[in-house]
Amino acid sequence: MDKTRFKTARRMQDIQPFHVMKLLAHARSLEAGGRSIIHMEVGEPDFETAAPIIRAGVRALEAGLTHYTPACGLPALRAAIARYYSDQYGLSIDPGRVIVTPGASGALQLVMSVLIDPGEVVLMADPGYPCNRNFVSLVGGKPVAIAVGPESGYQLNAERVEQAWTPETRVVLVSSPSNPTGTLIAPGELRQIHQLTEQRNGLLVVDEIYQGLLYEGSSSTALTLADDLFVINSFSKYFGMTGWRLGWVIAPEVYVEPVDRLAQNIFLAASTPAQHAALAAFEPETLTILEQRRQAFRQRRDYLLPALRELGFEIPATPQGAFYLYANCAAFTDDSYGFCMDLLEQQGVAVTPGRDFGNNQPGQHLRFAYTTGITKLKEGVERLSRFLERY
Amino acid sequence: MDKTRFKTARRMQDIQPFHVMKLLAHARSLEAGGRSIIHMEVGEPDFETAAPIIRAGVRALEAGLTHYTPACGLPALRAAIARYYSDQYGLSIDPGRVIVTPGASGALQLVMSVLIDPGEVVLMADPGYPCNRNFVSLVGGKPVAIAVGPESGYQLNAERVEQAWTPETRVVLVSSPSNPTGTLIAPGELRQIHQLTEQRNGLLVVDEIYQGLLYEGSSSTALTLADDLFVINSFSKYFGMTGWRLGWVIAPEVYVEPVDRLAQNIFLAASTPAQHAALAAFEPETLTILEQRRQAFRQRRDYLLPALRELGFEIPATPQGAFYLYANCAAFTDDSYGFCMDLLEQQGVAVTPGRDFGNNQPGQHLRFAYTTGITKLKEGVERLSRFLERY
Repeated sequence: MDKTRFKTARRMQDIQPFHVMKLLAHARSLEAGGRSIIHMEVGEPDFETAAPIIRAGVRALEAGLTHYTPACGLPALRAAIARYYSDQYGLSIDPGRVIVTPGASGALQLVMSVLIDPGEVVLMADPGYPCNRNFVSLVGGKPVAIAVGPESGYQLNAERVEQAWTPETRVVLVSSPSNPTGTLIAPGELRQIHQLTEQRNGLLVVDEIYQGLLYEGSSSTALTLADDLFVINSFSKYFGMTGWRLGWVIAPEVYVEPVDRLAQNIFLAASTPAQHAALAAFEPETLTILEQRRQAFRQRRDYLLPALRELGFEIPATPQGAFYLYANCAAFTDDSYGFCMDLLEQQGVAVTPGRDFGNNQPGQHLRFAYTTGITKLKEGVERLSRFLERY
Repeated sequence: MDKTRFKTARRMQDIQPFHVMKLLAHARSLEAGGRSIIHMEVGEPDFETAAPIIRAGVRALEAGLTHYTPACGLPALRAAIARYYSDQYGLSIDPGRVIVTPGASGALQLVMSVLIDPGEVVLMADPGYPCNRNFVSLVGGKPVAIAVGPESGYQLNAERVEQAWTPETRVVLVSSPSNPTGTLIAPGELRQIHQLTEQRNGLLVVDEIYQGLLYEGSSSTALTLADDLFVINSFSKYFGMTGWRLGWVIAPEVYVEPVDRLAQNIFLAASTPAQHAALAAFEPETLTILEQRRQAFRQRRDYLLPALRELGFEIPATPQGAFYLYANCAAFTDDSYGFCMDLLEQQGVAVTPGRDFGNNQPGQHLRFAYTTGITKLKEGVERLSRFLERY
């Protein structure tokens, strides 16, 4: 055993910082020096939380609703979330299966901690949200990232999952729409992956945190497939409540008790003011505002996607949702991190390098977030164009 | 490997629910049926969050401050916390060592995850806060509870720690004031335990979440001893912000980077509205209110402690802080859980059984919380007296 006094646990060697943070810090120092920076690296909506949600939060505070809630959340919020699935997807979900969590982060942590024994494998797509790996490593599990590309819309498919399956495989984690690619998994593939988990005594976890932010076709949920899978969602993205830290998980009935028991112990409960505010998230007035914002995101995507392709970035799989474009920049560089740093330094445009999303050709990829207005996006594209002329 | 599809991870076998929850659910069903219940089981202050903090929260919401903060917290809040240590204890703490967390729960999780490898041991007192064990188990560590009694004020001492130390021991966790006993660790013992951790290449973690709630002597912090230990604190108890879920950790400088890196990944950040609200927690107007509340808690303790002793409960070590009395009920029963259930059923008084705090004579102990007003406490004592007459 390493007996150095100030050592860290070995798992910390596997936990990477967000590389974009260094870039962001540099962007902020440039801004502090008076430079204009176009932010296309930020993974949260630029919109403030919608007014009806803010008002509900203010009312809760003024009414002194600041005590702990039950570990699984306010019963009224669990019921409202269940009703949302009924309204949107015609599904009847028992509110008892809805567990309100401190962000989708809290949900992912609960699910992985309840399911994964040391040495067990969770299959996931690469590129993907980097924290997913860490929730698995944290409890001694083994995240196995499967390289995916445009041919499968940057999503897992049943064939790849079957090839990767070993006796240690316990969970398949699918994110749809995906961060960083904005792409959806094909419903047929998801169904087949679910069947595979059934046959192999595994479980399916579907991250739907960008669910409402869809610009083609109609939004769906994996819960239409079955009730023996976990669905993770969030008030952060579509509902615009990032800083409030509120999400949820729909668990198979048999897992509600252990998830509740763990939540009691490691979180006590999610934020009470946030939960009261979120009760207003499903009101018609709020949904009207969120729909307008979705249209704004769609316009941004419809501008940015062809503009980046025009500049020579390859975006072979059209992103249908979220607020990200995942661009192949191999025409310009195989060092996307250096490219990002130069682009920031020379033109004041911040984008996220591929290395924040895994090990699948990270040097040839960039993530552009359209979490800023269209005027800024246009300015960003102009600056990018000037940058590329000299690159 | 157990290949049952709907199994849970083995760690879940070690994670106990709060037994008081079952009792609480029964209390609520009795209340719903019209029964009057005196609540002496609740581990949170009955006071609402102080008005200046509420107002700061409302202002933050109305100003649209709902986006993510940096993972370690708002720089202004980290600075305010550091200033608090300067004002209260004359200590100069670098704000860079202050990491704002989603409750003390988040702080405990970060610290244990950064420090503990599978198989490594964390020493802690029994009775103690039950979740402490689980933060260790969650990452594969081994919580070792040392039975403590009134002779050491229900706290660890250097002799017991030295006896329990093995090559696997990595951390000693001390809680002062303690939940459930309200007792403080003697400063000399804490100093010796710290020296022992230095000699043995271990680390000391001190949970000070009840720090401000002290009724004898003057409040202190382990940070006066050294800067190579972790201190965990919370806005929940003294500052009355339970449902907001906000706490902090002061980490040794060398651990700030890994704690930050893990916080980025597993939490993203603590609640933004809560952090803005907490900026008002250290203002003189707020501290005046909190001081009045501390006096109210003191009056309650000064009433309840002799009243329970009068009834025949043994409380040999006088609790100097928090809002708990840990009573030996061996004169009446060795089944404290059954005693609690009967007491609730027959007299409508809810208290917490010893089994929620460990395995050290749990059947002979009860925790009384004075988180309700003195009139209710008096009524509770009268009912207890009637209950004991027939027991």
